[in-house]
Amino acid sequence: MVNYPNGRSRAYSTVPKKKKSLTELSVTKKSTSKTKGMVAFGKRGMNFEAEINATNEYYLSRGLAVIHKKPTPIQIVKVDYPQRSRAKITEAYFRQASTTDYSGVYKGHYIDFEAKETQQKTVFPLKNFHEHQIVHMSNVLAQGGIAFVLLHFARLNETYLFPSSCLITFYYEKGGLKSIPLSHIRENGYKIETNHIPRIPYLEIVNKLCEVQ
Amino acid sequence: MVNYPNGRSRAYSTVPKKKKSLTELSVTKKSTSKTKGMVAFGKRGMNFEAEINATNEYYLSRGLAVIHKKPTPIQIVKVDYPQRSRAKITEAYFRQASTTDYSGVYKGHYIDFEAKETQQKTVFPLKNFHEHQIVHMSNVLAQGGIAFVLLHFARLNETYLFPSSCLITFYYEKGGLKSIPLSHIRENGYKIETNHIPRIPYLEIVNKLCEVQ
Repeated sequence: MVNYPNGRSRAYSTVPKKKKSLTELSVTKKSTSKTKGMVAFGKRGMNFEAEINATNEYYLSRGLAVIHKKPTPIQIVKVDYPQRSRAKITEAYFRQASTTDYSGVYKGHYIDFEAKETQQKTVFPLKNFHEHQIVHMSNVLAQGGIAFVLLHFARLNETYLFPSSCLITFYYEKGGLKSIPLSHIRENGYKIETNHIPRIPYLEIVNKLCEVQ
Repeated sequence: MVNYPNGRSRAYSTVPKKKKSLTELSVTKKSTSKTKGMVAFGKRGMNFEAEINATNEYYLSRGLAVIHKKPTPIQIVKVDYPQRSRAKITEAYFRQASTTDYSGVYKGHYIDFEAKETQQKTVFPLKNFHEHQIVHMSNVLAQGGIAFVLLHFARLNETYLFPSSCLITFYYEKGGLKSIPLSHIRENGYKIETNHIPRIPYLEIVNKLCEVQ
């Protein structure tokens, strides 16, 4: 177990600090390209993914849920095995994830979600979701899991929990549209009131969803 | 979605073929170092991880469960961004996983497990499990998830499902011992009778565990 200068152990972290920023770059490449570097998330100096990771760490530390971000899938092409030192990957590429980014367990329920942000103000582009992710969410729902997406409108500083069932319906039935209108998200999703701690208290909404089911 | 020569789509696979072998190398480095190359798994020409992945693909394809192997965690150090082509990772290292390798949902239950094999015939070395993985399993159990380890004795060609609760107890209470005796695993675990399809039908044992709980 590695201890970091801030005194917190690495045991609960799935992604190293260094990798986090690279992951963010790869995942939100298009949206960050306009803003260069650190995205101002509601002027709080944290981007959306970091906010969610902080929220998950809070839930874990309080024993409220065990939800982790999966490591970024990497396609490894070349590995060197220098003598007396560990394997060094010398050629690799970021791969498209075939499932969603986050999963875990909350009060016995399987939780599965994807988190995405947009710079748009009135719509959420569907290109943020790949078909195999939609298929994965359908499979999760069929097994009785709880699946959703967290959608962040960066310029509005509004975050919504949008159930995967709604996303799947929209994805297949509104084939012609390339984006989900914000009005549709407001009608069918749940706005998350962001707090100081935890940053994005999405489990409050999950509690509602569990009551509904 | 990428189609492979065997006609199966990539949508259900979390790890590319190339990466799988590298993952296996890194994860089972010590056990494979003696056998060089492909490990003979019960003379069926597949190693343990591949057997489990095949089992999970079977469960997924039949709509029985949605269980995936997490991508191998990689610490990225350097990335090149060549013009007009995708980002190329030029220096990275394998990282120790902070959670378990497999997770998913089965009949609404959260499933979480680690799979390990040994060349030993009478004991299973505890060094296969890191303390943060033990902590993770405890957290999962506290949230009502189902957690276990699949232990494969390669030379005996025997595979056991050993509940995490038993592993955790053994880990903390038998601190002096460096291995779990096979007799203890036989008494407290469940032997999995390997089949042709699915290869390692561990969900049959999970059904028993659910009845017990």
